[in-house]
Amino acid sequence: MLEKKFIFSVLYDYYGDLLKENQANIIDLYYNQDCSLSEIAEDMNISRQGVYDALKRAEKSLIDYEEKIKLYEKYEKYSEAAENIIKLVSSIEGESNKTIAEKIKVEAAKIINEG
Amino acid sequence: MLEKKFIFSVLYDYYGDLLKENQANIIDLYYNQDCSLSEIAEDMNISRQGVYDALKRAEKSLIDYEEKIKLYEKYEKYSEAAENIIKLVSSIEGESNKTIAEKIKVEAAKIINEG
Repeated sequence: MLEKKFIFSVLYDYYGDLLKENQANIIDLYYNQDCSLSEIAEDMNISRQGVYDALKRAEKSLIDYEEKIKLYEKYEKYSEAAENIIKLVSSIEGESNKTIAEKIKVEAAKIINEG
Repeated sequence: MLEKKFIFSVLYDYYGDLLKENQANIIDLYYNQDCSLSEIAEDMNISRQGVYDALKRAEKSLIDYEEKIKLYEKYEKYSEAAENIIKLVSSIEGESNKTIAEKIKVEAAKIINEG
């Protein structure tokens, strides 16, 4: 079970540009910058309840986007395949294959790190 | 330069669920089923101009989504890395590494084919 904070941080990274500006700001402040609802309310000059409602709407939008576009789901599959490649490469034998194995690891790491 | 038909077919596959239903239908009929504007107009009981306008709006939406979400761009990067892995694996030497090389190819193919 992944932590909620991590999930919304990733979904914001993927779909944040599709959110309304104030919703995107609230997700960013709450999940990435670790601000409290009260701090965000003061910062944006709206009520704490207003921040809470906007946060819930934004979370719902991000989940809806993931259900429709499935970028996170795709990325998990790609990462798993790339991690398997890295494990397999480690078991390649022979001095002459070392350079190739290193190059394969670099390519697989690109898939994992560009999520 | 990729063919327009191919690009919109892929973008529809990624973001079609975000389009309004009639726009999604028009993109599908035009780019996937190879229907003409007149055929779609007759089928949907609207004017040919109406179909054309909705098609252009739908195309613009798909391009906007790609500019914001960049799924196609990400997928191209992953595919390139996976194709490099397949090429590199082919140059691994030695009888004892054959099974590993085959397994690596299977993992890399997952990345390319699950786009």
